[in-house]
Amino acid sequence: MNTIILNKSAFVKGFAASVGPLEKEGKYGKYFDTFFKDPLLGEDTWEKAESKLQKSAIDNSIKKAGLNNKDIDLIVAGDLLNQCTASTFSNINTNTSYLGVYGACSTMALSIGVASLIISGGFKTNVVAATSSHFCTAERQYRFPLEYGGQKAPSAQHTVTGAGSLVITSKPTNIEIKSITFGKIVDMGITDATNMGAAMAPAAADTISAFFSNTNTTPCDYDALFTGDLGEVGSDLLVKLLKKTNIDITPIYDDCGLMIYDRENQDVDAGGSGCGCSASILCGYILNMMQKNELKNVLFCATGSLQSPTSANQNMSIPGIAHLINFKVI
Amino acid sequence: MNTIILNKSAFVKGFAASVGPLEKEGKYGKYFDTFFKDPLLGEDTWEKAESKLQKSAIDNSIKKAGLNNKDIDLIVAGDLLNQCTASTFSNINTNTSYLGVYGACSTMALSIGVASLIISGGFKTNVVAATSSHFCTAERQYRFPLEYGGQKAPSAQHTVTGAGSLVITSKPTNIEIKSITFGKIVDMGITDATNMGAAMAPAAADTISAFFSNTNTTPCDYDALFTGDLGEVGSDLLVKLLKKTNIDITPIYDDCGLMIYDRENQDVDAGGSGCGCSASILCGYILNMMQKNELKNVLFCATGSLQSPTSANQNMSIPGIAHLINFKVI
Repeated sequence: MNTIILNKSAFVKGFAASVGPLEKEGKYGKYFDTFFKDPLLGEDTWEKAESKLQKSAIDNSIKKAGLNNKDIDLIVAGDLLNQCTASTFSNINTNTSYLGVYGACSTMALSIGVASLIISGGFKTNVVAATSSHFCTAERQYRFPLEYGGQKAPSAQHTVTGAGSLVITSKPTNIEIKSITFGKIVDMGITDATNMGAAMAPAAADTISAFFSNTNTTPCDYDALFTGDLGEVGSDLLVKLLKKTNIDITPIYDDCGLMIYDRENQDVDAGGSGCGCSASILCGYILNMMQKNELKNVLFCATGSLQSPTSANQNMSIPGIAHLINFKVI
Repeated sequence: MNTIILNKSAFVKGFAASVGPLEKEGKYGKYFDTFFKDPLLGEDTWEKAESKLQKSAIDNSIKKAGLNNKDIDLIVAGDLLNQCTASTFSNINTNTSYLGVYGACSTMALSIGVASLIISGGFKTNVVAATSSHFCTAERQYRFPLEYGGQKAPSAQHTVTGAGSLVITSKPTNIEIKSITFGKIVDMGITDATNMGAAMAPAAADTISAFFSNTNTTPCDYDALFTGDLGEVGSDLLVKLLKKTNIDITPIYDDCGLMIYDRENQDVDAGGSGCGCSASILCGYILNMMQKNELKNVLFCATGSLQSPTSANQNMSIPGIAHLINFKVI
């Protein structure tokens, strides 16, 4: 597994996050560009609501980049829904080329990675990277219909109703995509779908240790490391797994799943999850802090658990994956 | 929508196709590297069988490229299953970085496109592009359990049990990836899931006409144009749609969905479909013909219909997408 180092060739131009009401009430609520009080966003299905949420983030990021839709050469997007339909219906008839990716909750880093390589290779000028998730579409698909009122295990995470979008561009801005590390699929035989943090932590440890080794750097060289959505169980496990290889991330580490809600006052079990979790924290909080120079050298490691309802019902294990992006203020 | 022209920077090194028994008995049976008489491939679920089928194509393509697994820098793969689990379980614990894509039946062209840009940009040396589909996993997921014995409309297509894999490399071989055209999502309001050819044809027409316009070429400049899996209804429609824009593809045109089976003697309705349809015809027949110099300048346009069972049940339309790769013998 090799880290791809870019040489000041891909930059963040515009970014935006859109969230639902619970996320707005969370600790980072003030950082999100747009919030929808109605989780249905005025639509008649949760699925249409998620597509609209993603579209609002994409449109906002393009606007904040000072661009129009016609300036966008390509959209790289994906989501958690079967056949990635949230992204499909968010991007129909836009007259822009579309590249679909699937990385479960690692999608924000995956789409940024793909978009950045296409920019850095000189193939396109402005590429959108986007993703979303919605609590109600995810519950229906992965767990139980909301009406059933299913109980959750304390290790379970709450799928974030949120979307994030960035415009990656070839023209220099103050935030550079410094490197990309695509992870590998790590399967440790975990089968408990209410404990996805544990399933994803080994993949995150694998990608993060590969990154430090490939770049010959240590956690001290960075201002912050954010994982996607390991939640309480998974992030504890990650710290322990990395300590075994003599990497101490604790001084710079936080997890988007632990950050997004107010866990003392909101009923969200082990924290947030879903593609929209790390996406909205990245496009809401992290990149805003970088634009203000309050964070300068950041590692963003989004993590995904790659099971499906069918594979879970068939007692297959839950493989994990983690992709890492190094953003740097220049 | 712009075609990306590569300048002798990405090449096809090894390729392989693996299929099931019905495909082996079809018109192109002799071109497939591996066939499995048992559609379960000795596994206890159809889903495990599909992963094994994809793995056999990947392993074979690496072997035929004269490489080992450790020489592969990245695997780009996807499939039709919810959360792309066929590709996930095909590539767990391989120690190779993994980049998941989703393009429904357009996945073969999509994964080749992404892999080729990563090679052409100088980011990696050997990248695998792969996909698969399986009749029994697709029936279970999209339509009815096999045991139900559901009847099909004559416009319906038969999902191919097949997988294809290529190694794309930076070192020159005799087959170059000349250009890539990522399509846009085209939604014409089709809602009949038993007529996916009609849903995909407008997207194919859009991508193909953009390609000819962008490259200032005509069908006469190419030996062959293959669409992914439009089947009988969709390919007729494509020819008509392109004629309206004064593009006559008939002298060079064939559709992988119409090619793969012996439709006079096999009960496959409007032809083959699924990611594995165009993948196995490409990695079985087309690239073999190119290696023998019998085809020299080929357009491969894989088409995908982007619905999910949920979106179909919600009466959403079926958006289509088509990505186009130009392969050239040098």
